[in-house]
Amino acid sequence: MRTTSEILSSANAVKSKAALLTTDEKNRALRLMADELEASAPAILEANAGDVEAARGVIPDVMIDRLSLSAARIKGMAQGLRDVSDLPDPVGRTLSSVKRPNGLTIERVSVPFGVVAVIYESRPNVTSDVAALTLKSGNVAVLRCGKEAARSARAVGDALRAGLTKAGLPADLVAVVEDTDRASSLELMKAVGRVDLLIPRGGAGLIRTCVEQALVPCIETGTGICHVYVDEYADPDKALLIVDNAKTSRPSVCNAAEVLLVHEAIAPTFLPAIYARLTKERSDKGLVPVAFRPDERAAKILGMKPADGALFDTEYLDYILAVGVVSDVGEAISHIAKHSTHHSEAIVTENQANAERFLREVDSAAVYHNASTRFTDGGEFGLGCELGISTQKMHARGPMGLEELNTYKYLIRGNGQIR
Amino acid sequence: MRTTSEILSSANAVKSKAALLTTDEKNRALRLMADELEASAPAILEANAGDVEAARGVIPDVMIDRLSLSAARIKGMAQGLRDVSDLPDPVGRTLSSVKRPNGLTIERVSVPFGVVAVIYESRPNVTSDVAALTLKSGNVAVLRCGKEAARSARAVGDALRAGLTKAGLPADLVAVVEDTDRASSLELMKAVGRVDLLIPRGGAGLIRTCVEQALVPCIETGTGICHVYVDEYADPDKALLIVDNAKTSRPSVCNAAEVLLVHEAIAPTFLPAIYARLTKERSDKGLVPVAFRPDERAAKILGMKPADGALFDTEYLDYILAVGVVSDVGEAISHIAKHSTHHSEAIVTENQANAERFLREVDSAAVYHNASTRFTDGGEFGLGCELGISTQKMHARGPMGLEELNTYKYLIRGNGQIR
Repeated sequence: MRTTSEILSSANAVKSKAALLTTDEKNRALRLMADELEASAPAILEANAGDVEAARGVIPDVMIDRLSLSAARIKGMAQGLRDVSDLPDPVGRTLSSVKRPNGLTIERVSVPFGVVAVIYESRPNVTSDVAALTLKSGNVAVLRCGKEAARSARAVGDALRAGLTKAGLPADLVAVVEDTDRASSLELMKAVGRVDLLIPRGGAGLIRTCVEQALVPCIETGTGICHVYVDEYADPDKALLIVDNAKTSRPSVCNAAEVLLVHEAIAPTFLPAIYARLTKERSDKGLVPVAFRPDERAAKILGMKPADGALFDTEYLDYILAVGVVSDVGEAISHIAKHSTHHSEAIVTENQANAERFLREVDSAAVYHNASTRFTDGGEFGLGCELGISTQKMHARGPMGLEELNTYKYLIRGNGQIR
Repeated sequence: MRTTSEILSSANAVKSKAALLTTDEKNRALRLMADELEASAPAILEANAGDVEAARGVIPDVMIDRLSLSAARIKGMAQGLRDVSDLPDPVGRTLSSVKRPNGLTIERVSVPFGVVAVIYESRPNVTSDVAALTLKSGNVAVLRCGKEAARSARAVGDALRAGLTKAGLPADLVAVVEDTDRASSLELMKAVGRVDLLIPRGGAGLIRTCVEQALVPCIETGTGICHVYVDEYADPDKALLIVDNAKTSRPSVCNAAEVLLVHEAIAPTFLPAIYARLTKERSDKGLVPVAFRPDERAAKILGMKPADGALFDTEYLDYILAVGVVSDVGEAISHIAKHSTHHSEAIVTENQANAERFLREVDSAAVYHNASTRFTDGGEFGLGCELGISTQKMHARGPMGLEELNTYKYLIRGNGQIR
């Protein structure tokens, strides 16, 4: 077994090489990696079966589903690699250029970070998705998968590395950390000078550990307590559609709504309507009904008991919706400032002034007017891909694509200038 | 005395207000703050005299000079505030905008961070410089000055706050931390959710403490082990000028050169020439001569004893120059990769291929061809101002101006879109 420290040394040894790869070299490698992934399907499926067998009864069924690979899923992963080969190369873009009065030209160009470490949980497709994005953006990937998916990640990593070798490139441009103890995550978090960027992808616990422990530059991703505010001037039909979609289309993801805020003027009609739609109407169709957690004002209208506890501070990731009634758009904005994780929030209104105020004043990565929070996604934003959704303000905010995996440097050309 | 925690609470209470100020409101406030600063000169000078008296014999004379204010320096600080009022407002720029096939328009706009805390050392002018930049960029400033300048910083802060009040704005848009114990720095570093961005401005010790202790987003600034590489194909006259300027024009600043690397083919003639220029010729003019710290190969050419210790890993900030001989541009690049703090490096050469290779391969914030490293500065880069020079890769690299004090958010406008 290679230790995490050895893997980091190998990664750093090839980082200049990664930064200088041409677009053609990278695209050719991505296609060969896709081919190898498909050719290695039997080995990957066998490894994955081992992971799934070991996980049964240990992790919830919904997680087992995330963990499980099939021939079709492997084909999808390969297609993901090919799709990234079709995206524009983010490296070497001139971001600005200025000629100074003293004759110096100062150019700002995009460059890779170097070694990008990603810590993630049990979805084996992340291994190939992330490797594709880091390679295309000129970075070296050090991938640390959760232990439930360790066999699968190793097998996927082996195939990707074989593809790199076939392309005549160093296999160490992509490495899967072999030690899946907690210690290996901490080692990545503390590898000052050896990890140029750390991206934790996972639940609130992982993110918190990174905030507390990481000494290397780190981008927090993916915890979403997202709000939909239904304004006094909302079109009720749009509001029903948007709240339904934001809550139920995929409740386990970070851009799903967790909290519904309703203006007091519309609450007496809207709340019973959305309640019927998300509970009885869903049950009638054989769908999982949504459990409402109302505050006092909402509970009164719905004839329910108010919910206990931190109803507005929980990322449910489930068919559960916290519901509050507010007196105006200002109170909605204050409520969001207090409880949001600054991911995605939406206002539903036909009042332009209220919409613009909400867009301007809500301090979240993505702020919507008359659309579902579920659109916060690299693909939906037209980035072509996504490495995660940043909920912090430094460097990248919202969906991170290839450009967000680059930093920049200044190139200054002179003819003997001194100061 | 207000505690640091109270100051943070007040700062957070006005951060939405700061973000929504119009350009006119901010510019008017900056001019009134400048007026108040000038009007408060007697009080500021008295406070400063107290600081200087307490510091005599405690800190070196060069630091006493940095600490000392005069009527002229206060005028300069006021002018700095007025200069920032003339700069473009960085808030609310549309950075990108796209209409998606589903009809959503997705706009990326620049927005302030929120509460920006800055920890700095003993230069009282930093208090007003930083306050100007944070206000203009829509942020709230929490300023934590070193204890040597505490009286001065308080007096400057009082004048700035009086200016804000005259402008009809909350004084708490700018606050000087009153507690100058080490504990108040640590409190800022750990104020998760209450400090949106922390910028330490100071020596290597402060930066290291921030890397190790900070839980809030932090931009490292200003440690510079900068290199000048004199290539085999250098114009010797340009090289002499550039090395001299990079080392001696202001050795105490972070963009001064600390290391000279010389190609072996030119070293036998160039090294004696630069040695004479920086030692005897400076002494003859009554200037401080530069102490050379040569590696073995350089020492042999200069007829000196090789320097001991970590000669290539020290930020001297003094009239001291580490000197090495390398076999080619590749060795120079490798040397820099190993020893640099990724701040500023220069190549002197008339060979275009070597220049472009150096520019491409050296991974530093600013990479120069035939110019002095001393140009790494917000003003010299045309940013109009500077809050510090980032030596990290996340968010901002190199000189940070007003734009770097903004983050962005996505505004998404729809008409009922769901996913």
